[in-house]
Amino acid sequence: MTELLAIILAAGEGTRMKSAQPKVLHEVGGLPIAGHVLRAAVDGGASRVATVTGPGHDAIRKAMLSIHPDIAFFEQIERRGTAHAAMMARPAYERAEGYIAVVYADHPLLRADNFKQIIERLDAGADAVVLGFEAKDPTGYGRLITDGDRLLAIREHKDATDAEREIRLCNACILAFRADIFRDCIDKVGHNNAQGEYYLTDLIELANATGGNVGYVVAPEDDVMGVNDRVQLARAEGLFQNRRRREMMLGGVTLKDPNSTYFSHDTRIAEDVTVEPNVVFGPGVSIESGVTIHAFSHIEGATIGTGVSVGPFARLRPGAHLGEGVRVGNFVEIKQAEIGAGAKINHLTYIGDAEIGAKANIGAGTVTCNYDGHNKSLTVIGERAFIGSNSALVAPVEIGDDAYVASGSVITEPVAPDALGIGRARQINKPGYGKKLHDRFSAIKQSKQG
Amino acid sequence: MTELLAIILAAGEGTRMKSAQPKVLHEVGGLPIAGHVLRAAVDGGASRVATVTGPGHDAIRKAMLSIHPDIAFFEQIERRGTAHAAMMARPAYERAEGYIAVVYADHPLLRADNFKQIIERLDAGADAVVLGFEAKDPTGYGRLITDGDRLLAIREHKDATDAEREIRLCNACILAFRADIFRDCIDKVGHNNAQGEYYLTDLIELANATGGNVGYVVAPEDDVMGVNDRVQLARAEGLFQNRRRREMMLGGVTLKDPNSTYFSHDTRIAEDVTVEPNVVFGPGVSIESGVTIHAFSHIEGATIGTGVSVGPFARLRPGAHLGEGVRVGNFVEIKQAEIGAGAKINHLTYIGDAEIGAKANIGAGTVTCNYDGHNKSLTVIGERAFIGSNSALVAPVEIGDDAYVASGSVITEPVAPDALGIGRARQINKPGYGKKLHDRFSAIKQSKQG
Amino acid sequence: MTELLAIILAAGEGTRMKSAQPKVLHEVGGLPIAGHVLRAAVDGGASRVATVTGPGHDAIRKAMLSIHPDIAFFEQIERRGTAHAAMMARPAYERAEGYIAVVYADHPLLRADNFKQIIERLDAGADAVVLGFEAKDPTGYGRLITDGDRLLAIREHKDATDAEREIRLCNACILAFRADIFRDCIDKVGHNNAQGEYYLTDLIELANATGGNVGYVVAPEDDVMGVNDRVQLARAEGLFQNRRRREMMLGGVTLKDPNSTYFSHDTRIAEDVTVEPNVVFGPGVSIESGVTIHAFSHIEGATIGTGVSVGPFARLRPGAHLGEGVRVGNFVEIKQAEIGAGAKINHLTYIGDAEIGAKANIGAGTVTCNYDGHNKSLTVIGERAFIGSNSALVAPVEIGDDAYVASGSVITEPVAPDALGIGRARQINKPGYGKKLHDRFSAIKQSKQG
Repeated sequence: MTELLAIILAAGEGTRMKSAQPKVLHEVGGLPIAGHVLRAAVDGGASRVATVTGPGHDAIRKAMLSIHPDIAFFEQIERRGTAHAAMMARPAYERAEGYIAVVYADHPLLRADNFKQIIERLDAGADAVVLGFEAKDPTGYGRLITDGDRLLAIREHKDATDAEREIRLCNACILAFRADIFRDCIDKVGHNNAQGEYYLTDLIELANATGGNVGYVVAPEDDVMGVNDRVQLARAEGLFQNRRRREMMLGGVTLKDPNSTYFSHDTRIAEDVTVEPNVVFGPGVSIESGVTIHAFSHIEGATIGTGVSVGPFARLRPGAHLGEGVRVGNFVEIKQAEIGAGAKINHLTYIGDAEIGAKANIGAGTVTCNYDGHNKSLTVIGERAFIGSNSALVAPVEIGDDAYVASGSVITEPVAPDALGIGRARQINKPGYGKKLHDRFSAIKQSKQG
Repeated sequence: MTELLAIILAAGEGTRMKSAQPKVLHEVGGLPIAGHVLRAAVDGGASRVATVTGPGHDAIRKAMLSIHPDIAFFEQIERRGTAHAAMMARPAYERAEGYIAVVYADHPLLRADNFKQIIERLDAGADAVVLGFEAKDPTGYGRLITDGDRLLAIREHKDATDAEREIRLCNACILAFRADIFRDCIDKVGHNNAQGEYYLTDLIELANATGGNVGYVVAPEDDVMGVNDRVQLARAEGLFQNRRRREMMLGGVTLKDPNSTYFSHDTRIAEDVTVEPNVVFGPGVSIESGVTIHAFSHIEGATIGTGVSVGPFARLRPGAHLGEGVRVGNFVEIKQAEIGAGAKINHLTYIGDAEIGAKANIGAGTVTCNYDGHNKSLTVIGERAFIGSNSALVAPVEIGDDAYVASGSVITEPVAPDALGIGRARQINKPGYGKKLHDRFSAIKQSKQG
Repeated sequence: MTELLAIILAAGEGTRMKSAQPKVLHEVGGLPIAGHVLRAAVDGGASRVATVTGPGHDAIRKAMLSIHPDIAFFEQIERRGTAHAAMMARPAYERAEGYIAVVYADHPLLRADNFKQIIERLDAGADAVVLGFEAKDPTGYGRLITDGDRLLAIREHKDATDAEREIRLCNACILAFRADIFRDCIDKVGHNNAQGEYYLTDLIELANATGGNVGYVVAPEDDVMGVNDRVQLARAEGLFQNRRRREMMLGGVTLKDPNSTYFSHDTRIAEDVTVEPNVVFGPGVSIESGVTIHAFSHIEGATIGTGVSVGPFARLRPGAHLGEGVRVGNFVEIKQAEIGAGAKINHLTYIGDAEIGAKANIGAGTVTCNYDGHNKSLTVIGERAFIGSNSALVAPVEIGDDAYVASGSVITEPVAPDALGIGRARQINKPGYGKKLHDRFSAIKQSKQG
């Protein structure tokens, strides 16, 4: 395979986002916009990646390196146009072999296929290839001036004739070249225009001028949408979700209402899983078959075994690992905990930093007191143990197999296997005193109002 | 009324569902797909029902019998086409009088009206009637070859001429006949075609060949959508929900956001009820007028009296019966419980297996400890009783009328009417010791990090 | 500026709503329909407001006065048409100067701009101006019969010729006049028609007949939709929400799924706030920048400081004020409480009627017992105080700065600064007794089943 260097242009400010954060770090499907472009490039065939950021954009570097470890970063200090931005990556491209693709970083729906299609055309002999799309409304976009399968020029909207403005085939967000052609042309780009900027699109006419074979490929419009404000960001998120929802359903997952199910870029769900309405999957979720995720569940960083039932109103946080057949019910939060097969945690419970044995039953209102204000400690509960309702388990603490904790207990000491642990006061009844309280409180109320 | 035998064909595998469960058992609006077809047939006039299933599809029998008690089931062992499937029901149709309708079981949006329209046409003298629809995109469907109001043939897409492919009127999912005509024709169906299968649609040309009066009626496309994969299942669910939402709103129910309100096939709601966004109604819910269901509520198998307020974040499970003016607040779960008029259960509470008297007040964090790991027991709370917050009521237990339970109590013994029950330890304060704890835990933290 | 009297006609019954409540009191974005019209009128330039209601509609008066303090109300006892309704406001208009606009109250999407556009046209010399719109489907609407920019008549659908029915420009919901022209014309309106009613639209032909300069302005169809049933009410709510969602996003708020975010008419959110899917904002919410509202949150009457994190599954009720950097987690309810900067309330907690100091940590399962069945009392928690999990704080009670409450405590007495408060029983373990309980309960179960 011919080598491909992808130069990702991520230097834009994105002022219309009205954000302290660089535009390309806003997320779609839980992954920064620039991460989507990076993945598309790498999965689409890029063997090398260079990225041009604006000054002070260290956060972009960090985010991108967490996705792909080998990226050469360059900084564009002055803003003098897209070709100028690409020139910042000269150390990366000056000795590059094969192909060079320049891609804008603010296009979160780009797919590997978009790159593959371009490479195919380059492999078929093109010296340069532009990714185009048929715009429903082309206003504002650069038009592709074509002759059959040849691309003659990219005409900016403002420079286009009335006839050219009728063209709906527009410039998207990737321009690719044979490496030698790219180097030839980029050195010739001028800035003799109204803005005094160096435009990447000028490389197309330059490549044609030297007799190059310049082509184009066409992507679906949705693949190449750019994000400039938060309305567009929401639209991109919606399109991304719709892609994932469709994949999931065709893969054998029932989504009761696809529009109310939110996936992350990395959500993995096996066949024959049912997801009720209103479920949010944060990053890092993996679910085995036969599982039902009931409505109003919020799940991130969790693994869920075969046949588990989760929710409604359940929250699984990072490090929650649910064994086969576990049941997690309503108003239950679980984080950083191994839950053994068949265990039940059905109501109003917080389990944090814990190991729970198979078939244990955790009563309603149970709280693992894992935090003393400074440190987190571990709670270990044995197999088949029964934790009575409204109990507080003060970690670090261990409850043995088959042990029994009485309802309403505060457990601070270990409970041995088979033992009963009880930590609550005896009940006292005061006949007639309930009525007295009612009367007293009622009198206070009346005196307040009086 | 002329007798109608409905033969429901439910033998398909539905491999594109990627499911261990037969396709027609997947649910729409909480009812299996086959159940919708069954209901449409019965409500539409079928006096007898036969169903043809695949081998090992006992679950289908069971599900259908739970909806309609009198169905004759037949099994299709070999898969030799739709007419072959219908032939399996020979014992049902061989002496049938009146009409016979054959209907595919994977069409969850069929309505009684679709059957009624067909019967009307049969009553008007037709020997056979096919349910057709105008397809937005007819590709793949059998086209209805008509002459005025006569149906000449059903032409499979692959056999259609270019001119015939222009026809948008397509075959839906019901073919109906006079019983004698049906018997005549089905015995003549051959399998002389590429797949070597017996096709039900061949009966139309056979009926015409014997001079029969063959007609068609036209249904809205949405009524006759078939379900073959989970994308279509989700679409069917959406269409079903939209039908119910519209009915509800026209009936005097405010849905703040109809698209986020999910009904079951049997949800019943009176006039002047308001439903906030994000509410899920499971099967078996009935709601009186003047009720408000706040956002993020999940309700199934519950009855809700006049003027009740539920949620937000409330879960009512089967057997929850709420009297007039009851208030159920956030993070509250109620199952199998009678709640008396005007009682309040406002926060973070689990009520299971209980009877709560009128005007009782259940404090935040109350838990009925109804389960000892093996048995469920009953909690009875009297009228106007006050249950202090964070109390655990260990069932079986009874709290009398006007009784008072002190906050934080564990109640294991009965509390008489008017009595105070208290089961908690006395508070002890240790001056300066809070700071010591802070310092100690902080030191531990630093030593861990050091 | 010329004076403008707005006469709001709110006397309709709205029987298709099927509601005990007058139609114009049903809400859109948390504000009654009539309130939207009132605001549009006042913000659009009305210096005086009169409202005509039906008999017994005191609730409308009350609701409208809570939005704008200076409204003259009139009652229409008999229902004799729209002009008759307007005549009820004679005391308001008989000496009015400037302009008079008559507007129907059931149009919740009217904007100030609709009024401004009308006033502009009046200022430019028109004697009367009608607000029109281009209807996608004009069936049923009165058509505007125009000649250039002159309006000749409003023709009711049933009276229109076939040619006139082709007209898509229709009468919306505002008719405005020079005050003297209005008085002239309304006195001449007859009721010589099939219904025997006085029609407001007749004023247009009357104004023309006296040589008046009658014009029209055109509004977007969505601005002028009327609400007659709850399907239309839901549609109006959806359009209103879409307006607000777009404003919010363009203003720098990320809405992960705009369609699942519900605003009130008065929600205020600063730049660089992120709102996850499924969030409901009731009235009276104000949010500073840098905040994240996680999924499944329900917020009303709350102020949220810079950098706060709320939810998922959080409920903030009226009077919840969250200082900078506060964290409120899952299954937490807060009402009428000041939460100091940096305080954490992460799980399963009810805070009501409380003041919580900066950097305090409230453990899981904490409940402020603010209600004794009759009175509400205050809980005060100091800075950096640590409240152990599953504690009940029985108000009125005060916990000092840096104090420490042991997990599972019931606190009824004050805890001094730096002190430890503990109110729980000692734990007792009974070896082997857990197994005995398991065996006993299991035997009971079997005897029940046997």
